[in-house]
This record gives sequence, structure tokens and C-alpha cells, in this order.
Amino acid sequence: MVLKLYGMREATCTQRVLATLAELGVTDFELIKINLYEQEQKQPSYLALQPWGKLPLLDDDGYLVYESRAICKYLALKFHEKNKTLMPSLDDLKAYGQFEQACSIELSYFEVPAFGLWFEQFIKPMRGFGATDEAIVNQHLTSLDTNLAVYEKILSKQKYLAGDEFTLADLYHLPHGVKAAPLKLQAVIDKYPHVADWFQRIQERDSWKQSVV
Amino acid sequence: MVLKLYGMREATCTQRVLATLAELGVTDFELIKINLYEQEQKQPSYLALQPWGKLPLLDDDGYLVYESRAICKYLALKFHEKNKTLMPSLDDLKAYGQFEQACSIELSYFEVPAFGLWFEQFIKPMRGFGATDEAIVNQHLTSLDTNLAVYEKILSKQKYLAGDEFTLADLYHLPHGVKAAPLKLQAVIDKYPHVADWFQRIQERDSWKQSVV
Repeated sequence: MVLKLYGMREATCTQRVLATLAELGVTDFELIKINLYEQEQKQPSYLALQPWGKLPLLDDDGYLVYESRAICKYLALKFHEKNKTLMPSLDDLKAYGQFEQACSIELSYFEVPAFGLWFEQFIKPMRGFGATDEAIVNQHLTSLDTNLAVYEKILSKQKYLAGDEFTLADLYHLPHGVKAAPLKLQAVIDKYPHVADWFQRIQERDSWKQSVV
Repeated sequence: MVLKLYGMREATCTQRVLATLAELGVTDFELIKINLYEQEQKQPSYLALQPWGKLPLLDDDGYLVYESRAICKYLALKFHEKNKTLMPSLDDLKAYGQFEQACSIELSYFEVPAFGLWFEQFIKPMRGFGATDEAIVNQHLTSLDTNLAVYEKILSKQKYLAGDEFTLADLYHLPHGVKAAPLKLQAVIDKYPHVADWFQRIQERDSWKQSVV
């Protein structure tokens, strides 16, 4: 039975899963478009499957799982034989600890300000939610500057955030990182040479190039 | 070699790990106090171990791992034989997917507004960061109301957030949930009977009662 991914290719969290499928070499899936612009994610038929009314949702032969990072981990475990480094082997306890640490770093120290930069400078005015608040933009930039200084220390000692292999923890940065890059994020990244090199390397992967519109 | 946990019993993220150790029945560990009030987490000797200057940090015979939720998962996997339900067995792919989904729900829809309520109403005035901003408090309450309405749907069908077993995904809610409860969170929780029942049940566990001051 083919995997069904409910999502939208242009939507950041769907892109996170699409890039993971590409890393795993899984091409046998169906992308069922849920159009965010038409609020299809709030339709009762979709809410019956995904109670939060958000994208994406994976249907694996009737088994449903949502939250993009959880879907990525589920897929990396399901197809572990296809790519053994995207998520460490689960009998390698030390690698697993470093991987979960790196996943938590992404969510705690990158996601909020990177998404915030994109939201404040692009989504807010585009969707008519009001004008960009420069004080909020600066708050996110300060936060990223502080946090990427620590990324620099980590990435000066290892190639990727969880060690010397590219993992989901790196991949998770791409959707909002790439959106926020031209919106003042890249200038902060460029202050930190190891971070700049890492961010360029992860964007250059075929999996990501295939997934972004 | 005994586990060393660098942290502070009064600190929320340290409590998350202490409750996990208690669920696992691990008592053979040393808690090395890093005093937040004296900024000991910013001392060079600690920063050499934990580059973010945050609590807690686990030292397992020279292997270091930080970020509280990552430490909890590492411990749950290390001591899986002691408690097989706190985190699902990793060869149970479907349970693993639901578990990661639940962990993501906690971080995406609970942590930010619950921590925010506590910070805005308690930490901010207590630490001299300024007066409580009621607009921010109301924003967090609105967010919690919206999100706990979905928790209610989920918890009306299953006992815990990842299924019918108590897992780390439930436990993760405790430190900031308990701090925010008297600060207007409990009133929102009480609107949702299944959520209220669940929140009471998870607080009543011995592991939590042993861990909170």
C-alpha cells in the first residue's frame, strides 16, 4: 500500500517531510494536496484525520501520524535500512542521545527566531495580519546571534549538529532557515564561518533541491 | 560508575529529568548542584561541558548529554528494561510514531504558552525584568484554550497523550504545567474534563511527588 502524505509542496512543514522521503530514497508515495490558502485543513473531513487542522499528515496504510518532525522520525525508523545515518541506529545509545540533543537544539534555539523572522517580515504583511514590527525582528535577530555563536562552537568540532553525519536534526533547519535567510538571517549566519559552511552544505543536498519549489 | 546530573532540584528542567529517573527507579545518581541564582551555569568550567550555559547536563561515565527532553529519552532507552512503557519499545514502529507525535504536541502547543504564563506572571516581576504584561498573559491563555480543546478530543479517546500508557510525552508537561497552574492555567484546564482528569493523574504519580520541592 502506497504512503499518502497530506500536505502542500509549498508549505514549509510539508517540505521537511518531502526532504526526508528524498533522503530515504522513498519515491512510492502519493502527495494529497490540502490547500492552505483555501483553508482546506480546517474542513471537517480533514479534521477527522488531523484534529489540529494542520499540515502535514502521513497515512501509512491506515496508520496516521502527524507533526512533521514526528513523521520524519517515523519514516527514518521505518526505512532505516535505506539510510542508516539520517537517524542513528537505535541500538547505538550514545549516538541516539547526541541526536535527540541536536533535535532539541533546533527546536529550542533556531526554530522560534527563524520562523519568527519569516512570519514577521513576510507572512504578517502578506496575509494582512498587520505591519512588520521592527522591535520583534530585532529580538529574533539578537536571539539568533546569541544562539548561532554556540552553534559555531559546536560546528567547529564536528561536521553536523549531532556529530559527523548529516541527520534529521540538520534537515529540520531547512524549511524555515531557507525562508528566513534572505530576511536578515543570512547576515547573522555569515558572522559564523562554520555555521555558514554548514548551512550551505545542508542546502546543497539533492534531497532538499528536489523538495523545494 | 554513577550517573552525574548537573542541575538544581528547584529548576523546572532539572525536575523533568529527576521525575524520569524516579519513573525508571534509578536512584544511583549524584545531583551536582549548579546554582542558577549565582549564575554558576555561566562559569567557564561549566561552559566547557555545556556550551549553552544551561541546566541540566548528564554525565554518564564521561559521556555528556544535555537538553532535558533529550536526557530523558536517553535515560528511558538506557534503562528500558526497568520501565518498558515510559518510551515505547523502539521496534514497535507504530507506538514510536505516536510517541514522537505526542512529544511534538507538548513542545508545539503546551510548552510555549505554559512557560510564558509562568514567566510573565512570576519570573519577570520576581527577577526585576519588568511588570507583567496582561496582553501577553491573555495571548498565552487564548493559545492554551485553543490547544487544550484539541487535547480534550485526544484524551477523550485515550488515557494519555501517546496512547493508553503514561510516557515521557505526558511527563514533559509537568514542570511548567505545575508552575503555571495557579497562574491561570488551571482555570483553562478545568474547562476540559478529560484534560483536567489527565493533568491530575500525572501530578499524582510518585515519581513527580518525589521530584518536586
